[in-house]
Amino acid sequence: MKRVMITVAYDGTNYHGWQLQPNVLTIESVLNEVLSTLLQEEIKVIGASRTDTGVHALGNIAVFDTQARMPAEKISYALNQRLPQDIRIQASREVPLEFHPRRHKSKKTYEYRIWNSEFPMPIYRLYSHFTYVPLDERSMQSAANYLIGEHDFKSFCSVGTTVESTVRTIYNITVQKSGDMITIRVTGSGFLYNMVRIIAGTLIEVGKGNLTPEKMVGILKSCDRAMAGPTAPACGLTLAKYEFLEEY
Amino acid sequence: MKRVMITVAYDGTNYHGWQLQPNVLTIESVLNEVLSTLLQEEIKVIGASRTDTGVHALGNIAVFDTQARMPAEKISYALNQRLPQDIRIQASREVPLEFHPRRHKSKKTYEYRIWNSEFPMPIYRLYSHFTYVPLDERSMQSAANYLIGEHDFKSFCSVGTTVESTVRTIYNITVQKSGDMITIRVTGSGFLYNMVRIIAGTLIEVGKGNLTPEKMVGILKSCDRAMAGPTAPACGLTLAKYEFLEEY
Repeated sequence: MKRVMITVAYDGTNYHGWQLQPNVLTIESVLNEVLSTLLQEEIKVIGASRTDTGVHALGNIAVFDTQARMPAEKISYALNQRLPQDIRIQASREVPLEFHPRRHKSKKTYEYRIWNSEFPMPIYRLYSHFTYVPLDERSMQSAANYLIGEHDFKSFCSVGTTVESTVRTIYNITVQKSGDMITIRVTGSGFLYNMVRIIAGTLIEVGKGNLTPEKMVGILKSCDRAMAGPTAPACGLTLAKYEFLEEY
Repeated sequence: MKRVMITVAYDGTNYHGWQLQPNVLTIESVLNEVLSTLLQEEIKVIGASRTDTGVHALGNIAVFDTQARMPAEKISYALNQRLPQDIRIQASREVPLEFHPRRHKSKKTYEYRIWNSEFPMPIYRLYSHFTYVPLDERSMQSAANYLIGEHDFKSFCSVGTTVESTVRTIYNITVQKSGDMITIRVTGSGFLYNMVRIIAGTLIEVGKGNLTPEKMVGILKSCDRAMAGPTAPACGLTLAKYEFLEEY
C-alpha cells in the first residue's frame, strides 16, 4: 500500500465543482473513475481544495491510496492518457501514508481575473468575469491592503457556513492591471467558503467607486456578510498554487 | 444606404473559420444571419481577414451595407444581444461607401501562443499550442529577426495557394516568454495562407534546436515550402489587431 499525491489542473467550466455528488460530473468523480480503471481497484481521492462549480485550477492537490505496483511518478502520464482534455495531472509522487492534504499546513494562492472593457472578449469569457464599468485598480489595491494579516473574515464568508473559526491569515494580495485585464492575486493560510469571490466582489465595488478603500476596516470589524460586496462569479476564479509549508 | 464597419472578436474553437461554407457554422454565416434578422434586410458582410477553422480573433474587421436607420454606433450593442457568447462586436461605425477592408492599406498583428511545459494546462488548451520539448525563446527571437522586412515568403505559404505575389513585409516579430507561455507576435502588411502558422512551426523547430537561427536565410531564399517547418496548429493563433494605415 502506498499513498500518492497528484497535482491536478482543470478547466472547471464543464464540472459541478470538485466534490463528489450524485448524477453530476465533478472533478473528484472523474478522477475516482479513471484511477479505479487504471489501477484496477477502487480508488477514492482526498482533495485539498474542494473548488466550486465553474472554478478553475492550475494546481489543486489530491492524494489516494493504492496497492498498485506502478511507480508513483509514472501515474501522471498514465492518467493523462485516460482523462478528458480539461483535466490534466501536472505531477504525481509518493507521500507518507499519514499525509493528509487538508491537515498539513499549507499556503494557497488564488487568482481572480476581471475583463474590464467596453465589451466582453470571447477568448477570455470562460476564465474571467466581465465588467464594463471602469475600475480603478489602485484604489482596489489600497482596499486589499487592509485585508493582509490575521483577521476574522466572517464578513467575507457565505452565510450558513459552519466552521470552528472564521479567523484566517492573508499573506499577500496584489491587484494588477495588464491591458484590460485586472488580476487579483491572494495568498493565504486558508480560505472560508466563497471568501475569495466575496473579496473580489467587494474590491470591484471599491474599483467602481461605490466604496472607499477605508471602508474595508469597518467591513472586517462588523463580522457581517451583508456589509461586504456581492460574491463575484465563479468563472473568474482560479486556484493557482497550493504549497505545503512543512516537510512530509 | 450606408456602409458600417464592425470590429469582431471571437473564440474560433466552435467555428469552421470565417468564410461562408455550406452546412457548417462559420463566423461569416452567423454574422450574416444575425445582422439580417436585426436589420430586417439581407446583409452580407465582407471580412478583412478570413481566418481558418479554430483560429481566434480579438479584433477582426468586417463591413456591410444597410438601409436601416439604426445609428452605426448602436449596432454593436444590438448585435451583441443576439450573437452567441463566443462572438462579440467590439465597435461599430459608419465608413465611406467605397471603403473595402481588404483593399485599404493595413497592418495586421497576429499572436501565436505556445504552452511549453511538461504537461498541458487545461485553461490554456483552446488558445495555445502545447509542446513539452523545452524551447529556447532566445534562439527563436534570433531566427525571427531574419524575417523582418520585405521578403518573398513563398517558403512560408501553403502549397497550392494562388496569389499574384508572395512578397510581403513583416514590420516586427517578438518572441516573449512569460512563465511557461511563449508568445510569438508578428506584425505585417499582410500574410499569405498559413504564413503565421508556418513561421510559428519553423520557430518551434529552432526553439527545439533542430534548426539554427541562421538557417532562416536559406529557407527564405529557397522559396520552397518543404524547407520550412510544419504548420503549427490553428488553436495557438489569434488575430490580435487590424489597423488601417490611411484615413478613410
